[in-house]
Amino acid sequence: MKTTTVAMTLLATLAAPAFAAEGMWTLDNLPLKQMQAQYGFAPSTAWVDKLRQASLRVAGGCSGAFVSANGLVMTNHHCVIDCVEQLSSASDDRVANGFLARERAQEPRCPEVELNRLDQISDVTAAVKKATRGLSGEAYQKAQNAVQAQLTKECRGSETERTRCDLVSLYQGGQYQLYRYHRYADVRLVWVPEFAIANFGGDPDNFMFPRYALDIALLRAYEDGKPVTTQNFFPFKADGAEPGELTLVTGHPGDTQRLLTVAQLETLRDKTALHTLPRLSELRGLQLQYARQGAEQARQVTTELEGTENYLKVLRGELLALSDPALLQAKRDEERRLQAFIRSRPALRREVGDAFAAMARAQTRARDLAPVHDMVEGGRAFNSAYFRHARTLVRGAAERALPNGERLREFADNNLPQLEQALESPAPIYPALETARLGWALSKLRETLGPDDELVKQVLGTEAPEAMAARLVAGTQLAEPAERLRLWQGGMAAVQASTDPFIQLALRIEPRARTLRGQWEAEVSAAEEKSAERIALARFARTGKSAYPDATFTLRLSYGEVKGWPVRGQPVAPYTDFGGAFKRATGAAPFALPPSWLARQGQLALQQRFNFVSNNDIIGGNSGSPMLNAKGEVVGLVFDGNIDSIGGAFTFDERVNRTVAVHSGAILAVLRQVYDAGFLADELTGTRSK
Amino acid sequence: MKTTTVAMTLLATLAAPAFAAEGMWTLDNLPLKQMQAQYGFAPSTAWVDKLRQASLRVAGGCSGAFVSANGLVMTNHHCVIDCVEQLSSASDDRVANGFLARERAQEPRCPEVELNRLDQISDVTAAVKKATRGLSGEAYQKAQNAVQAQLTKECRGSETERTRCDLVSLYQGGQYQLYRYHRYADVRLVWVPEFAIANFGGDPDNFMFPRYALDIALLRAYEDGKPVTTQNFFPFKADGAEPGELTLVTGHPGDTQRLLTVAQLETLRDKTALHTLPRLSELRGLQLQYARQGAEQARQVTTELEGTENYLKVLRGELLALSDPALLQAKRDEERRLQAFIRSRPALRREVGDAFAAMARAQTRARDLAPVHDMVEGGRAFNSAYFRHARTLVRGAAERALPNGERLREFADNNLPQLEQALESPAPIYPALETARLGWALSKLRETLGPDDELVKQVLGTEAPEAMAARLVAGTQLAEPAERLRLWQGGMAAVQASTDPFIQLALRIEPRARTLRGQWEAEVSAAEEKSAERIALARFARTGKSAYPDATFTLRLSYGEVKGWPVRGQPVAPYTDFGGAFKRATGAAPFALPPSWLARQGQLALQQRFNFVSNNDIIGGNSGSPMLNAKGEVVGLVFDGNIDSIGGAFTFDERVNRTVAVHSGAILAVLRQVYDAGFLADELTGTRSK
Repeated sequence: MKTTTVAMTLLATLAAPAFAAEGMWTLDNLPLKQMQAQYGFAPSTAWVDKLRQASLRVAGGCSGAFVSANGLVMTNHHCVIDCVEQLSSASDDRVANGFLARERAQEPRCPEVELNRLDQISDVTAAVKKATRGLSGEAYQKAQNAVQAQLTKECRGSETERTRCDLVSLYQGGQYQLYRYHRYADVRLVWVPEFAIANFGGDPDNFMFPRYALDIALLRAYEDGKPVTTQNFFPFKADGAEPGELTLVTGHPGDTQRLLTVAQLETLRDKTALHTLPRLSELRGLQLQYARQGAEQARQVTTELEGTENYLKVLRGELLALSDPALLQAKRDEERRLQAFIRSRPALRREVGDAFAAMARAQTRARDLAPVHDMVEGGRAFNSAYFRHARTLVRGAAERALPNGERLREFADNNLPQLEQALESPAPIYPALETARLGWALSKLRETLGPDDELVKQVLGTEAPEAMAARLVAGTQLAEPAERLRLWQGGMAAVQASTDPFIQLALRIEPRARTLRGQWEAEVSAAEEKSAERIALARFARTGKSAYPDATFTLRLSYGEVKGWPVRGQPVAPYTDFGGAFKRATGAAPFALPPSWLARQGQLALQQRFNFVSNNDIIGGNSGSPMLNAKGEVVGLVFDGNIDSIGGAFTFDERVNRTVAVHSGAILAVLRQVYDAGFLADELTGTRSK
Repeated sequence: MKTTTVAMTLLATLAAPAFAAEGMWTLDNLPLKQMQAQYGFAPSTAWVDKLRQASLRVAGGCSGAFVSANGLVMTNHHCVIDCVEQLSSASDDRVANGFLARERAQEPRCPEVELNRLDQISDVTAAVKKATRGLSGEAYQKAQNAVQAQLTKECRGSETERTRCDLVSLYQGGQYQLYRYHRYADVRLVWVPEFAIANFGGDPDNFMFPRYALDIALLRAYEDGKPVTTQNFFPFKADGAEPGELTLVTGHPGDTQRLLTVAQLETLRDKTALHTLPRLSELRGLQLQYARQGAEQARQVTTELEGTENYLKVLRGELLALSDPALLQAKRDEERRLQAFIRSRPALRREVGDAFAAMARAQTRARDLAPVHDMVEGGRAFNSAYFRHARTLVRGAAERALPNGERLREFADNNLPQLEQALESPAPIYPALETARLGWALSKLRETLGPDDELVKQVLGTEAPEAMAARLVAGTQLAEPAERLRLWQGGMAAVQASTDPFIQLALRIEPRARTLRGQWEAEVSAAEEKSAERIALARFARTGKSAYPDATFTLRLSYGEVKGWPVRGQPVAPYTDFGGAFKRATGAAPFALPPSWLARQGQLALQQRFNFVSNNDIIGGNSGSPMLNAKGEVVGLVFDGNIDSIGGAFTFDERVNRTVAVHSGAILAVLRQVYDAGFLADELTGTRSK
């Protein structure tokens, strides 16, 4: 069904005002006229301002929002499962059992969770373009890095702990903006339900609907040891939203590729098919069998297995979309129209130049370089928490000795707080799991580069990958935050004096890794960015800002409505209810309801709406977004898209692309009737209005 | 490099006399003129006849040959590793330690190895086409099955134990032939070296060169309890062959797709990328981690892991070739030329009709049906030795009650001896491994069909896949050959009375499985075969039999010469030597030489040629083929192709496609100097001439 319709939708996406519901709009460029025309609602500046201040980014890839005046934050369980796991132990498994703090004093700090609130956007397109004008390759990349380091540092000022600034490229290089965020680093866990219900249906149901999952976590932001107080929050509406009613999703969609050139999409397709999908599938098999070795192994690997499986579904969905000849044909046609437009304007033609050809050349280089680059510089060959720490320490020692503007991007002053947070984190690392994963990863190094490659010989010597992994893991001290901080503070002298086998490994491969990175940045990313900037000029000339930019993990608003969709001609109803969950339960994971639900079944209204779908335009990163009505009340909590939403990375098809959310009323009901947490339900429905 | 050159080669393949070395020629259509012109050698009828009688097919997917007058048979270690494993136990690991029978009485029987010697070819094109004329869909398929059952039964006559007849479709339906084979079912193990040297370099070196592997097994064919005696065998030549010297490979290449239509190739590409490659990769990860659980687990899973890894390399290579835009473009161009030829001949045009369109329609159905068909009817969801036995028993009981011509192909009388051999086999089955693999496979059933599918509910009920797998494996008696034979002999009554959980599972899914098969055969395979037959008519009209047919696991001859090839402009030398193996050894698997080699290093001539490459045109199935000189002497043992040979499934590129073989002199040297088996070397070099 999809193949015949994608083409039509695509034209709309690229060349004309967006369809109803399509678009991940930046707050400074909302389609107010369209919204007014379609739903009789155009938000005021004050409304948008409040929305911005109540919306949160969960660093690492999710969204969230303030949902009370006392700093209560709502996001998805799957967005903070790392924290829940880190706060667990073999004897107190909070992933399995859930967690509820009945008093503020019982709210434990999540070691690695950081929340960002967007405070300011400023356009810096001119400054960025000026800095890189006339440059290419390595020079372009260095100038980009320098201007980025400078702009973000200026933006951040002296408030280095509580402020974070990102240079954001919108419209694939058409616009550069500085986003300044307030940074909440003290985030504590308030409530998570049991994994069995948060993740009910597990991987089989992921990206599916009908659905019955309570994928929620409540956190609380603290500053100076006290809960944050704010008037900018979204209160709950127990009734949710009705079909056809306007629904707004505020959040941080991570990454779409709707404006990529055909050459880029083909590279992505082939890389996914030949490398990413097989590699991740193999890792999944390894993790599945690791989990089978025992209950404790299963506990250790649950989170990363879930991550692998989620990513795999996305990859499969994307590859399916990119294997659809109609999609690529429509993109090709649109590209031809844009090229014709460029040819018709001599001035534009000079500015754009050979951008499409240069983009295609960059793809050829990307295909050649990616396998080895991703293995060594991307760190896939050393897939271990220990190695990631070691890489940060080795590289950080060298980079911090340089002026801010000359460093690799991730070591600019702006990014150091996050790096330090990770080094300080007491999150447990499981040696047996690291050994299994690293041994496998090292074997991939040999598989990709070949046994006769000099780096392979240098890394493995005469050791088998599994034996080397075991030796490294047995010998490392990097599980200790104190040791990591000692090396971080000690700089290059401490790093070079270290006998830690992971530090030594990271030092050993550093020259080759840096060479690969330099090559990649000069020949692929700089060439891509430069070409994309020039192509974006043409798009702006043609359609102006009537289009929305690709998602970039920055704050966006999507508008739509509660609405089912047809599957093979049959309508899928937009709501499920509690009764359906009890019917679907088999007693065996991932379809086992937790004991708490079974015990309280009699107290739940079985007709209570549980999950629902809307046609809002979202993508990975929107997980944890609140779904709001026009009054700014929470009607749901976004936690997924349907399977058709994955192709939304490349094009939005309103007829089948759907957002999946937990109903606000379901959350309130279970807090009261299953978890005896009426006090939290009261906090969520608190009388303070907007 | 490859992309720009494939097109040229391809034209040669399809439309003109083949390049030097290209072609897997049937013995009744050898390119004698070309051979004479290129190498001054055109084999006589007597020479070809002897070649045919000395060549063997190893049932299951390999080649082999008689190499002594006393029934000694040479093939690859990897072709009979199942047998070596079946003849091993935890306390006597013949895979790891190798095996040598110093007397005939010590030669143990391989439970499942069967050898076939081709005795006769007869053309039955007219009979087959007559039987299916005017039919389509299910009727076409049934008529095909009936004529196949009838022809093979007539061909086999009363010699049912020692004769096997296959109906072979050549030129993708352009020609049908009956191949009658002599069947050797009593095959015994004589010698295999240690896995460490048979498989030196393991998966990293698989499909690679330079190479240092002794991938050989010597077997002996018995009849009536005595070694077979024959004058038709290939004696060893210790000197091997020199560069440029004619080399002949006789054997059974399994399967090429050089004559497929573009629509078929695209289906294959997308199926590989979206389904086969990810599924196999996941299985590989599972098997790798299973092997890590302990030495015994590693032993259990070695063979199937090796099989998975080998298949994965093939899949990746094929996908790489099919992702090459130049390859598909060349195929498209050639298809257009063929279509133009058809249009220019009105009579042919009527005969071919809408064959290309019908083929494309069959592809659409194949894409829709394949995922569920492969899971249920293909048995992927029940990936277990127990289930395969159960399927044979359940289906065999129903099918054997039907007349021969009305049965599913694999239950025709002609195929029963092989089925019975598998049921009788005492090969061990490892319950823990079966549980792990089956639990995973059942989870794929749910993943593919969705948790709400009726069959999924029927199979799993409320059980988790892993729990169900454990229960089934714990409850089955099908590990016992006696129980399997009881059920086989008891027919449907015994099967239906069985309480074995695997029998019950196979019975439960049988209706859906048969429905899926019927659909597939009617809408996909019958439509494909019918269309291919019509397209083949056009090819014959255009090029006659100057082309060779796609490989079909039937006896072929390839001619070529010892020759290196260039990699990134640098020549790869065609030979390696013993010295190189000792240099390459690291002491860690898969680069560890066995103790026997280390102990005898001093006695080996380090400059002895070990492995080498030639430009013969081979494909999977040629493993175990002898490589011969013009005198019919063994100069090597084919065991692999280089990485470029994988794309040979679709097109042959003489400049880079290479066959990898063990040098005859290396085999003789190690028999004498490492394994103290001079008596075998003597048998191989026996004075009896051809």
